[in-house]
Amino acid sequence: MANEYFSEFFRYKSDYLFCEEVKVDDIRQSLESSCFPPSPFFLYSRNQIQKNVRLYQEALSQRGYTSQLNFAVKANPNVAILKEMKTLGCSLTLVSGMELRLALSLNFDPRLLMLNGNGKVDWEVEMAVREKALLNIDGMFNLEQTIRICRNLKCTARVLVRINTNMHMDVHEYLRTGELGSKFGTQIDEMDHMLDAIRNAPEVVLVGLHCHIGSTIQDVDMYRKTVKLMVAKFKDLKTNGFSEMKYLNIGGGLGIPYTKHAARTTKCLQSPIWNTLIESDTVAKQQFKSESCGDMSQYNFEVELKRLVNDGILTEARCSSLISDEGLSSEHPSPVDLVSSFSDFIADDMVVILEPGRSLVGNAAILVTSVLGCKNNGDKNFIITDGGMTEVIRPCLYGAYHHIDLTEPTRDLTGRRLYDVVGPVCECGDFLGKDRFLNTPHSGCGLAVFDVGAYCSSQASNYNLRLRPAEVIVDGQNWTVVRRPDCFDDLVRPYAV
Amino acid sequence: MANEYFSEFFRYKSDYLFCEEVKVDDIRQSLESSCFPPSPFFLYSRNQIQKNVRLYQEALSQRGYTSQLNFAVKANPNVAILKEMKTLGCSLTLVSGMELRLALSLNFDPRLLMLNGNGKVDWEVEMAVREKALLNIDGMFNLEQTIRICRNLKCTARVLVRINTNMHMDVHEYLRTGELGSKFGTQIDEMDHMLDAIRNAPEVVLVGLHCHIGSTIQDVDMYRKTVKLMVAKFKDLKTNGFSEMKYLNIGGGLGIPYTKHAARTTKCLQSPIWNTLIESDTVAKQQFKSESCGDMSQYNFEVELKRLVNDGILTEARCSSLISDEGLSSEHPSPVDLVSSFSDFIADDMVVILEPGRSLVGNAAILVTSVLGCKNNGDKNFIITDGGMTEVIRPCLYGAYHHIDLTEPTRDLTGRRLYDVVGPVCECGDFLGKDRFLNTPHSGCGLAVFDVGAYCSSQASNYNLRLRPAEVIVDGQNWTVVRRPDCFDDLVRPYAV
Repeated sequence: MANEYFSEFFRYKSDYLFCEEVKVDDIRQSLESSCFPPSPFFLYSRNQIQKNVRLYQEALSQRGYTSQLNFAVKANPNVAILKEMKTLGCSLTLVSGMELRLALSLNFDPRLLMLNGNGKVDWEVEMAVREKALLNIDGMFNLEQTIRICRNLKCTARVLVRINTNMHMDVHEYLRTGELGSKFGTQIDEMDHMLDAIRNAPEVVLVGLHCHIGSTIQDVDMYRKTVKLMVAKFKDLKTNGFSEMKYLNIGGGLGIPYTKHAARTTKCLQSPIWNTLIESDTVAKQQFKSESCGDMSQYNFEVELKRLVNDGILTEARCSSLISDEGLSSEHPSPVDLVSSFSDFIADDMVVILEPGRSLVGNAAILVTSVLGCKNNGDKNFIITDGGMTEVIRPCLYGAYHHIDLTEPTRDLTGRRLYDVVGPVCECGDFLGKDRFLNTPHSGCGLAVFDVGAYCSSQASNYNLRLRPAEVIVDGQNWTVVRRPDCFDDLVRPYAV
Repeated sequence: MANEYFSEFFRYKSDYLFCEEVKVDDIRQSLESSCFPPSPFFLYSRNQIQKNVRLYQEALSQRGYTSQLNFAVKANPNVAILKEMKTLGCSLTLVSGMELRLALSLNFDPRLLMLNGNGKVDWEVEMAVREKALLNIDGMFNLEQTIRICRNLKCTARVLVRINTNMHMDVHEYLRTGELGSKFGTQIDEMDHMLDAIRNAPEVVLVGLHCHIGSTIQDVDMYRKTVKLMVAKFKDLKTNGFSEMKYLNIGGGLGIPYTKHAARTTKCLQSPIWNTLIESDTVAKQQFKSESCGDMSQYNFEVELKRLVNDGILTEARCSSLISDEGLSSEHPSPVDLVSSFSDFIADDMVVILEPGRSLVGNAAILVTSVLGCKNNGDKNFIITDGGMTEVIRPCLYGAYHHIDLTEPTRDLTGRRLYDVVGPVCECGDFLGKDRFLNTPHSGCGLAVFDVGAYCSSQASNYNLRLRPAEVIVDGQNWTVVRRPDCFDDLVRPYAV
């Protein structure tokens, strides 16, 4: 069975990229006359989001216990996506007062909302307490703050304590949230004075434990170890005076296969068919054996294989077998893997809250950019696009990899080259991808940056006074602009004081 | 003579931080009732900006040639600062159409404005051409684009060619803009086909050369080498058909002494007075000789020395001599150093354009934050503030150092500790400074992050749905809010489509 993450809604048909049933370039051309600036823009697949959510819901519903799926708004605060999450039955995990306010304005059930954060300001705690939302308490000063505010408001708050289970994750240092020396949470063995304070404060009711082990996690065994520790502490607390204990809020997000296209390439490269082929075709041999062809994971096999079919070198059937995702392995765990890892620890009196962000929306969007031109400087070739670090900061900030490919056949005859794909921002960190082996695009050609649904638009900025882009959602054959681009007035409005 | 960068407008008086004549905490308290959210906020010194501009203007005016000082808007697009630059006689260097539009809306003389950028979109070039602004041409495709647009508009454009002089700078890789393999500019020896195209296109008039060797430059000899190359090319072009040649646009920004506080500390530590002192005072000895005191550059000597005066251990006169900036050396070049480095190459028929950003505004602002609390996790201590990477991304993005200190005496009696200063954003990259030896602040205490006038507010984001902060300018005894904070409506407005 193909890995479920590979059945995606962004696919090439006849060398044109489609999002569901819509040709990406049709949207790009349509925005030219209806939207300023028309490019770049984020493009979402509604069905991919729905599918991602269902994968989690099905994984959870097959278990005997009660559960709640919270979308982490910080991954993507697009209002249309939040509405979709509500329709799908998700609640939200929030990390600021404005995220909470947005959730309330969209009529999410306040009692199911979760306010997280290592540094909450008083007004944020006040809003959560008034609205009866759940609060994850990060540490002693956050607890004292919450008790003080509850007393002032004469309200009671349901709180979870965020414990730091001291798990070391092999992810980017900025995404390690659950280890010793992180700013987040409280060590289990240092909880006692917090528990004493909670015992002495009738205003706060301890209803659960929270943890967050990190982001882009690929090893679900870390969840198992964490939940084992949490459950032991849960039982200990429940039998020692905290009878309202109910929630296990299991945080930390699954990674998504950002390099899945590379996995397809690897499958091709390792196939006996391919090895025979490469020896028999001069062009292919030259392309693939060349020392200068760089990172092979960038190779668009579909286009190349199609050429070989056209040239009569490869049969249609063998081509289909090479292109299919059958037998593709991915190191990335699925929601089922995650839920399976810990479910045997969960008892009937526990409610599991998961709070994924990235794995619910990450693979559901591309950034569509337009090529401004290509240039060469020394031994480097550049594709310069109208999108950059202001829209997708992950390559610059985390050294993250995002697959990049043309959205349409190029009209340039130069052929393939090793390119750095860069934006127009006046900064060398403004790159989308490095050493990508791509067909030379014509000026104006569409270019897609894949898997940008999470932590891209949410981290976008107006640096260089760039306008944060439009966002469009596709549903089958239809598409809708769900966020207009910033405009000049947005940039200057705050200065009119 | 003290380094001119040290005569600054942020100074401690009786343990309180002042911006010019205003106590920073008075502003912080005043905003509590008049502004939401009241903290964090950027605080600028108008006189520091004026002084920085004057240093450049004086350095330039002492030379025999004509010159133009352009403020690089990308460093800080605050409208009040741009108006100040206009009053001071500066023009602007712009890197996007929206920066150009903002400049035009503020009535800058269009013919003195410079539009830069390695990836200009057609409408941006069109706006510059219509308004008769100067255009820096990055490379061949930018030139062809400009010629095409001029033909369509039946206009002429005055252009400079951006040459890449292949200088390797010892600065952060993201700030190296002028070396082989950078996305910017054109190699001098590859200019010929561009020059041919310009000769054949009466629509574009070559009026100069542009270069940008990088940012945070500390070695002015690089400017000298660059300008030497530029001048040789300038003369060559002028005598070979490009009679309108006039401008040398010398880009690349001076670094500023972000670690100047460390220089003060070093001066103290190396002083014979101090060495005698340290041996005679037990408390001082313990503080300064302790293995655990961490980065000594963080030490607030002024506070410590005052204690020694109060205790009768140090005379007032010796204290003043230690605190003064007399004899302080800085590795950072001044505007005079920069201008001196290349001026002997400049002839009467040349107009020099400098385009500093960082060194005009960088040291003219602090971020004022409020402490939410302190916590410990393993062997790490944290000060958690209400400001973070969303306001000041430079530590996270470039590993940059910004000095941090309390704005008021702490009411906490715990003493000094080694702290990481972090924000409330749900991300481990959300830190403002690491391993800072600071007095433990009380909850609510003010904390200042220094030298944030450049590339901080301009790179701010709404990540975690945080509201970009207020900006305040001090002028002597007066202060004015010149940018209101973002509000909830700003966050959701673009989704109302």
